[in-house]
Amino acid sequence: MDSDYGIPRELSDLQKFRSLYQPDLPPCLQGTTVRVEYGDATAAADPAGAHTISRHFPHTYGQPLAHFLRATAKVPDAKIITEHPVMRVGLVFCGRQSPGGHNVIWGLHTALKIHNPKSVLLGFLGGSEGLFAQKTLEITDEILTTYKNQGGYDLLGRTKDQIRTTEQVNAALTACKELKLDGLVIVGGVTSNTDAAQLAETFAEAKCPTKVVGVPVTLNGDLKNQFVEMNVGFDTICKVNSQLISNVCTDALSAEKYYYFIRLMGRKASHVALECTLQSHPNMVILGEEVAASKLTLFDITKQICDAVQARAEQDKYHGVILLPEGLIESIPEVYALLKEIHGLLRQGVHVDQISSQLSPWASALFEFLPPFIKKQLLLFPESDDSAQLSQIETEKLLAHLVEVEMNRRTKEGTYKGKKFNAICHFFGYQARGSLPSKFDCDYAYVLGHICYHILAAGLNGYMATINNLKNPVNKWRCGAAPITAMVTVKRWAQNPGATSFGMPAIYPATVDLQGRAYELLRQNATRFLLDDIYRNPGPLQYDGPGADSKPISLCVEDQDYMGRIKELQVYLDKIRTIVKPGCSQEVLKAALSIMSSVTDVLSVMSTPSSNGQSNI
Amino acid sequence: MDSDYGIPRELSDLQKFRSLYQPDLPPCLQGTTVRVEYGDATAAADPAGAHTISRHFPHTYGQPLAHFLRATAKVPDAKIITEHPVMRVGLVFCGRQSPGGHNVIWGLHTALKIHNPKSVLLGFLGGSEGLFAQKTLEITDEILTTYKNQGGYDLLGRTKDQIRTTEQVNAALTACKELKLDGLVIVGGVTSNTDAAQLAETFAEAKCPTKVVGVPVTLNGDLKNQFVEMNVGFDTICKVNSQLISNVCTDALSAEKYYYFIRLMGRKASHVALECTLQSHPNMVILGEEVAASKLTLFDITKQICDAVQARAEQDKYHGVILLPEGLIESIPEVYALLKEIHGLLRQGVHVDQISSQLSPWASALFEFLPPFIKKQLLLFPESDDSAQLSQIETEKLLAHLVEVEMNRRTKEGTYKGKKFNAICHFFGYQARGSLPSKFDCDYAYVLGHICYHILAAGLNGYMATINNLKNPVNKWRCGAAPITAMVTVKRWAQNPGATSFGMPAIYPATVDLQGRAYELLRQNATRFLLDDIYRNPGPLQYDGPGADSKPISLCVEDQDYMGRIKELQVYLDKIRTIVKPGCSQEVLKAALSIMSSVTDVLSVMSTPSSNGQSNI
Repeated sequence: MDSDYGIPRELSDLQKFRSLYQPDLPPCLQGTTVRVEYGDATAAADPAGAHTISRHFPHTYGQPLAHFLRATAKVPDAKIITEHPVMRVGLVFCGRQSPGGHNVIWGLHTALKIHNPKSVLLGFLGGSEGLFAQKTLEITDEILTTYKNQGGYDLLGRTKDQIRTTEQVNAALTACKELKLDGLVIVGGVTSNTDAAQLAETFAEAKCPTKVVGVPVTLNGDLKNQFVEMNVGFDTICKVNSQLISNVCTDALSAEKYYYFIRLMGRKASHVALECTLQSHPNMVILGEEVAASKLTLFDITKQICDAVQARAEQDKYHGVILLPEGLIESIPEVYALLKEIHGLLRQGVHVDQISSQLSPWASALFEFLPPFIKKQLLLFPESDDSAQLSQIETEKLLAHLVEVEMNRRTKEGTYKGKKFNAICHFFGYQARGSLPSKFDCDYAYVLGHICYHILAAGLNGYMATINNLKNPVNKWRCGAAPITAMVTVKRWAQNPGATSFGMPAIYPATVDLQGRAYELLRQNATRFLLDDIYRNPGPLQYDGPGADSKPISLCVEDQDYMGRIKELQVYLDKIRTIVKPGCSQEVLKAALSIMSSVTDVLSVMSTPSSNGQSNI
Repeated sequence: MDSDYGIPRELSDLQKFRSLYQPDLPPCLQGTTVRVEYGDATAAADPAGAHTISRHFPHTYGQPLAHFLRATAKVPDAKIITEHPVMRVGLVFCGRQSPGGHNVIWGLHTALKIHNPKSVLLGFLGGSEGLFAQKTLEITDEILTTYKNQGGYDLLGRTKDQIRTTEQVNAALTACKELKLDGLVIVGGVTSNTDAAQLAETFAEAKCPTKVVGVPVTLNGDLKNQFVEMNVGFDTICKVNSQLISNVCTDALSAEKYYYFIRLMGRKASHVALECTLQSHPNMVILGEEVAASKLTLFDITKQICDAVQARAEQDKYHGVILLPEGLIESIPEVYALLKEIHGLLRQGVHVDQISSQLSPWASALFEFLPPFIKKQLLLFPESDDSAQLSQIETEKLLAHLVEVEMNRRTKEGTYKGKKFNAICHFFGYQARGSLPSKFDCDYAYVLGHICYHILAAGLNGYMATINNLKNPVNKWRCGAAPITAMVTVKRWAQNPGATSFGMPAIYPATVDLQGRAYELLRQNATRFLLDDIYRNPGPLQYDGPGADSKPISLCVEDQDYMGRIKELQVYLDKIRTIVKPGCSQEVLKAALSIMSSVTDVLSVMSTPSSNGQSNI
């Protein structure tokens, strides 16, 4: 199948139209000069892990932030790069395809050629397998023609990606050396960017000249931290899913006889489910993070849905739409514990048929209680990130089944007097992943591609390309790079906040912030969503007219400008330095000392591990 | 829930934009004069049933076609209606919601008010149940504001619709009398329009002044005949599904490890599956009509798919997309026979648990061979049109399962040496049905709404609103009305062409014409689709720019202008009359007689029942 990569293909009218779309560049990336300003050295987000992380990444931990500046910016200590030697760069798609991925290639290719037409971009064919086997395709303008602004990863393909074992890391090292790469760009989510950090460290240790750069491309939207506001693909996925959810809402309201249980992709975290809820206003959403925080059991969740069904029945409403993130199943404490037991046994090599007899008594009791189809799905071998095969576990069917049983029980008991409860289940996963990317994702990915070049031109290793201020127009975007090690923690994704467990240093998926504004918006409207059927239909993804330029609600309501605030703080510090110069009065100096002493005390206390209760960020 | 009907609601930006869209009217419907030209009396499409049908519909059979003409058209015997008394019209949504339905209301309301501002349009709330119970909502401009060009049937709602039993028909009659309706407009598919024909006949018999009008609105696209080219909703459904299928194709090509089995809505006929195939170019589609025509067994179909998987594996391709219409399961002869036995037993009141023991030996053998989930689904009570609950039977999972078993067998046997076969199953049904309608469906439904008024103004009863020449721009559309009885046949949908069975006079779903151009186009490309992965992505439904004005391929490739050709024939006949006038030469007269005699002979032979091999049309 390799011979098919990069071949031109027949495009539909809309695809052709989109292939002609040219994203803008923010002012800081225009022109042929690269100007970098370095910030302070970065630290681990969670101080508790700093020591472990710094030991794990001796060469790449603690590097400074980098900001790319416009040619005219007057920053005295900015590094200006005007010479651009020929550069050879490799790019690999890792992990699940996410709409917009192709534009990273396009952006990087354009930037390489602008700065030196002799530079070369090699795409690795078939994901990390292609990297190990050194199967490459040289990217050209011609090849890109039918892939610009298009969905999928089919220009290069991808595999079940992981660059982790010694064998894999060595194969990558050999490939980069033999292909004489100056840079290796890894496009992917949390797992792939963790691999990128590891690879950068190994390369530095081995004195391999190839610099490793990560790009945050994942439809799950869970590669979020103080440096990364949003991931490429998330906007498109939420738009396509919201369209479908809204269609189902309209359907529910027209037919008035079904409850639709819709499971959404997004892995462990519930970002997709939250965004789609804010877009479409379905009756209910059950976020994994809420379930984990409140330690809700399967029985609690069932009861919660049944009570909602009953409340609606009292208003003579027998239809509804309920969203469930695919990660929900792992957030339910007792199911998670059961899954852990099953996975443990599977890893020990116990045969699937023998598992149920080897479970602990309570796990066995839960397992036997579950309907057969779910049993079979829970017995699947876990994924490379240790989670269950979330896309294969039909949580929506399980809950619909449990709710039906409970509603029948209530009917029999006489506590529910409404019509029979009818459910229809859906899983919205694969049908959104290959979508044509939204304008926002096209722009975001294209600019990130350019930033990759600037990172490499600055000679940085182990950095991720970042853009801040994304909710504003492209000309306001702030482009930079952050050391991936600054995003690494040693905390695993905790089932219950507070109950932390420590693991390998890695970028762990950021969960929905239950203190954040997006979640607050959901809570404020939850009752109206539940009872008033204020369904909203954003409609199909548009490329022209209303809605074409919209961005995720969860991006727009959050005040995420961390990098901006870091800069703001530096301005304050500089001002103090100017005011309290040698020659200032004793009184001023005294006042300054006193205040600075308390500030440092307060911040020190706040920065110690014990008071840091948040699981991420 | 009734109090919620017709309430204004919050629209998204795109919905607002769409609510401001104003469809054009074809020239023949502009102005305030209604001009009707009547054609010849219509006959039943299938002469074999003519006698039965005429006996069944003594008052409404054999009425002429009606054509609505532009004000300036010079047709000598056109009936011109210039007076427009106040009219009271009721409208009811019957059957499954189909995108565009709301625009029928809008078009009819506008036409009523243009011709007499005092006329009243009543919408029945909650489908036929609302009709029987006389629950109405008076349609106003204000109410329509947030429903123009919007999806769903939620302005009025609908129920499990049927107007068939004596009790139901009498309730409808009483409602029309008590509400003093001049007209009753029934919006729906084959079943609802059959009910409309029956109601028109009953009303005529009972001397009820209410005229009944049918409107072809069904996403299945199976209300097709010489008068009806296309149904409202079909274009939207195919666009939304094609978008998703294309996304899955892109996904398949990116991941290269799964076969996606996608089942599509559309009831017994495979129109949706065919159109989506022509739009998206998936690797394979299995049409119910092909299976029925070739009498393929479950084993044959499995083998066909396995051979395809194997052929692709030889090209190192381990991914693919296979479409299945939901009606496929009933097209498989042995499954159909099994379903018939099950339905017979269910109707006799046999309990579900007892069915398998009461099946005939061969049916029992097949039943026991099937996996448990399918058994459960086959045991569901049949629908009102006697078909199985097609939306609930997971044919895609059955076939994926059978293919997997067979591929594993081939692997074990050594005849297949490729990688393991992996399937992912999808059902694309409810997520498209509530979509915002395409521009085409908005236009089509709006104009049909206007035609309903013209039909009522002309005092016609038992007619369906029709538009011909749909593949051309709106200003070329030909508007008319055809007696519904001319679409009625006594043939049931035959499992095998030739094997006809006779039933009640009804409009039966038109199946995909295996001699038609759309199917020919599919056959011509089938091998390239299968092996070359020439996936095409029409993208999300657009309202602006490329693709926004596209129409179904199966509409555009067919040469369907039956009404146009009827007119063309009349022109020929008139010409002959002009040439062979008294006074013409003996030779001319002789030649004319000789030719006309053979023509009538040939046509007589072709029109006798025995030689009519087609199942529909």
